[in-house]
Amino acid sequence: MSRKIAELLSRLEKRLDRSAIVSADEAGPRYQEDPDGKDGAPPAIVLRPRTTGEVSDILRLCNDAGQRLVVQGGRTGLAGAARIQAGEAVLSLERMTAIAAPDREAATIITEAGAPLQMVQEAADAAGLLFGVDIGARGTSTVGGNIATNAGGIRVLRYGMYRAQVLGLEAVLADGSVLTSLKGLPKDNSGYDLNQLFIGSEGTLGVVTRACLRLHPKPATEVNAFCALASLDAAIALLALLRQKLGPLLSAYEVNFAPLYGAMVAGMDALAPLPVGAPVYVLAEIQGNEPDRDGDRFAAVLMQAVEDGVVDDVVVSQSPREFRALWAVREDANRFLFSKRGLIGVDISIPLARMGAFLQDAEAAIRAVDPNADIYVFGHLGDGNLHYQVGTVDPAAAYDIVYRGVAAAGGGVSAEHGIGLDKKQWLHLARSDAEIAVMRRLKAAFDPNNILNAGRVFDLVPATALSDGVPQ
Amino acid sequence: MSRKIAELLSRLEKRLDRSAIVSADEAGPRYQEDPDGKDGAPPAIVLRPRTTGEVSDILRLCNDAGQRLVVQGGRTGLAGAARIQAGEAVLSLERMTAIAAPDREAATIITEAGAPLQMVQEAADAAGLLFGVDIGARGTSTVGGNIATNAGGIRVLRYGMYRAQVLGLEAVLADGSVLTSLKGLPKDNSGYDLNQLFIGSEGTLGVVTRACLRLHPKPATEVNAFCALASLDAAIALLALLRQKLGPLLSAYEVNFAPLYGAMVAGMDALAPLPVGAPVYVLAEIQGNEPDRDGDRFAAVLMQAVEDGVVDDVVVSQSPREFRALWAVREDANRFLFSKRGLIGVDISIPLARMGAFLQDAEAAIRAVDPNADIYVFGHLGDGNLHYQVGTVDPAAAYDIVYRGVAAAGGGVSAEHGIGLDKKQWLHLARSDAEIAVMRRLKAAFDPNNILNAGRVFDLVPATALSDGVPQ
Repeated sequence: MSRKIAELLSRLEKRLDRSAIVSADEAGPRYQEDPDGKDGAPPAIVLRPRTTGEVSDILRLCNDAGQRLVVQGGRTGLAGAARIQAGEAVLSLERMTAIAAPDREAATIITEAGAPLQMVQEAADAAGLLFGVDIGARGTSTVGGNIATNAGGIRVLRYGMYRAQVLGLEAVLADGSVLTSLKGLPKDNSGYDLNQLFIGSEGTLGVVTRACLRLHPKPATEVNAFCALASLDAAIALLALLRQKLGPLLSAYEVNFAPLYGAMVAGMDALAPLPVGAPVYVLAEIQGNEPDRDGDRFAAVLMQAVEDGVVDDVVVSQSPREFRALWAVREDANRFLFSKRGLIGVDISIPLARMGAFLQDAEAAIRAVDPNADIYVFGHLGDGNLHYQVGTVDPAAAYDIVYRGVAAAGGGVSAEHGIGLDKKQWLHLARSDAEIAVMRRLKAAFDPNNILNAGRVFDLVPATALSDGVPQ
Repeated sequence: MSRKIAELLSRLEKRLDRSAIVSADEAGPRYQEDPDGKDGAPPAIVLRPRTTGEVSDILRLCNDAGQRLVVQGGRTGLAGAARIQAGEAVLSLERMTAIAAPDREAATIITEAGAPLQMVQEAADAAGLLFGVDIGARGTSTVGGNIATNAGGIRVLRYGMYRAQVLGLEAVLADGSVLTSLKGLPKDNSGYDLNQLFIGSEGTLGVVTRACLRLHPKPATEVNAFCALASLDAAIALLALLRQKLGPLLSAYEVNFAPLYGAMVAGMDALAPLPVGAPVYVLAEIQGNEPDRDGDRFAAVLMQAVEDGVVDDVVVSQSPREFRALWAVREDANRFLFSKRGLIGVDISIPLARMGAFLQDAEAAIRAVDPNADIYVFGHLGDGNLHYQVGTVDPAAAYDIVYRGVAAAGGGVSAEHGIGLDKKQWLHLARSDAEIAVMRRLKAAFDPNNILNAGRVFDLVPATALSDGVPQ
């Protein structure tokens, strides 16, 4: 242990009880694990506060000592923001998991940042309400991590990103100062909305300790449908049709391009909902308030779409069991893709008008480099968000092709996973030098010693300004 | 003309054409007028750029010269943010009013900041789409001003505040650097979302020059209803009932407390929709997609509420003419209140659970000071936002009572109008010292010379730090 860490430790021990401080040896590999398999460095030390006051003490002491920290929630992030870099201490929110009972009248809930998303969903449900964000990692990912990455998921087109769920935050700045704004007012312009700074900034500007989240009325009905379509254009036309006919009832619109569905079906336990072979499959969902009508209304629009030649084949769920089974097919994409080794994956957003050309051009360019490349694409079509995976002998070329294609199409290099460590080399393709300079200005204003998640999203000192490659 | 202004002017003249520079004499009183009647100082000069490049030149040159600027849009703001302070130049966006044709597929529109809100609404409507924000000043207030104040209005409970409509911005910082982020992606986590900084910060961190705004499918039906109720509790119960039964169809929920409605009716040209005398009136609106059903469905829920004793009396609009007539009654509150001289008005948000106690306590406290005070309250009950007016011989006491009551109830001292110059003395009642310190930190990072809307929202140097009362 370095002298710096030993001195810091003795100061921390005066402020925290013994269980809040875990040495690297005691910690084992737990905090180094990474969902992409890119494990992190051993932690300098692991700090596990129980209260906002302890978070404040930790940050103040680390800031004074110049000790860098990486903030960890559920460690399910897919961009490496929570991966330990050499010399970093871990600040884990894992012991701050309390959730207050929802306020039914205001339709809000106050939760600590370490609570898993699923606990918030279940607390809302038990109060007859709904939390609007759902993602695959719901059981492990935490509210704090969701906020730090402005998580999206499957119901953004109905309820918005995580940002739209945040009515208030409590956050601790690098110097230990605590900002508490948990009133939960749906409409408040009393000065700057500082909450926005901490949403989607990946833990670089402050540590979120609590949140007041918006809840929604629980729908009386949920119905989904699985459709086979002849083209992306048909899928975009169906989206417009559902929006026009069903308005705000439409709650999810997921896409799965060939050959992914066929490959998934080959390894699935359950029966495939539709035959393989179509170029595009869509899972659409509605949430409504009229149990006697919603399903029929949804089915009628879809049947008309079949008659009009927009949809080739469709199955509409007729029971909660069928509803869950269709969602299981959607989530099976993750099982299949995690089982394939060596795939590269990107999380991109593309304007719908340019998505077809992007997909065609990217595939052609990848195949020109590697004719045997596997390309698997699915995602949240309603939001223009694709998860694009490539199995190829030349990953570097594939990354380059995809991200430059995204930039040319006016898209984003991360739709919902964030930039972290793993995507920052491509940030400049999506954001101007002036924008990145302002991000640095913000970081310097909030964390002048660069102790919080340093080097995530961007390097504080531009690479060209470094003569000796000092990690930033 | 001071030498400083003369030198700046000669530099500006090299960059801008003659029509962009207007002297105080040429300008007349136009830029000094204020909707509250608190007219501003004469401008040092008025600058009227036509392009973002010209805005950038103006800011860079003014920043170099230390010349303060006040940014003006439609000058309809109700907190004095656009009111000229002595020595300030005016930066008016009045010549940047271009609106591009909406992108129907993406459901977005790109507009310059000086375009009036109503032009955006009409452009959306002509493309078969809807813009989600509507406010009384729609004909004059501008997109840039709406963004600067995070405008709210009557449909927040369906579509959210202005912040929820902003998919991208172009903004110019005090040093002239231009941040352009107009891709219009509904889901993008490629680095910090810098747009958020400029929404609701009242022109203090940068000048918005263009915006990419979200549009919504145009509803097929709009129906409203005017209800008489026995109490605020009944109005809150009806809100919960409509949300439960109609879900996202509910698009507005406005309240009007006695004696305001009675006073309005006495001076109205049109017939009153319901007899005066009830303690509370509500205007509820739905927007739906089923012309054959929506009105009946809405009426059925309301009739059941009458049967259940929640609502005492109700009229449901049966035609577009009746629909508009009911909204005219709502907007008549502004006519009536502007006609009363000497009223003080505040724009507050209060948690619904504490609103009844707040109203009772505030009225009792005001009447203890001035038994003859007139108290008129209306607002956006669905958002917990009240516009509270008092006619009293002791305005200072009334302000103090209301704002301290708001603070005690956990509310906000400005729900949708902003803080500007006129409310900053009460900001500390709603925000902590730590929060206001961070606002100052942001301001210093973005506008170190304090040239942009200086002294709006807060003073850059706290009043206690000033020995000689230098205006900040």
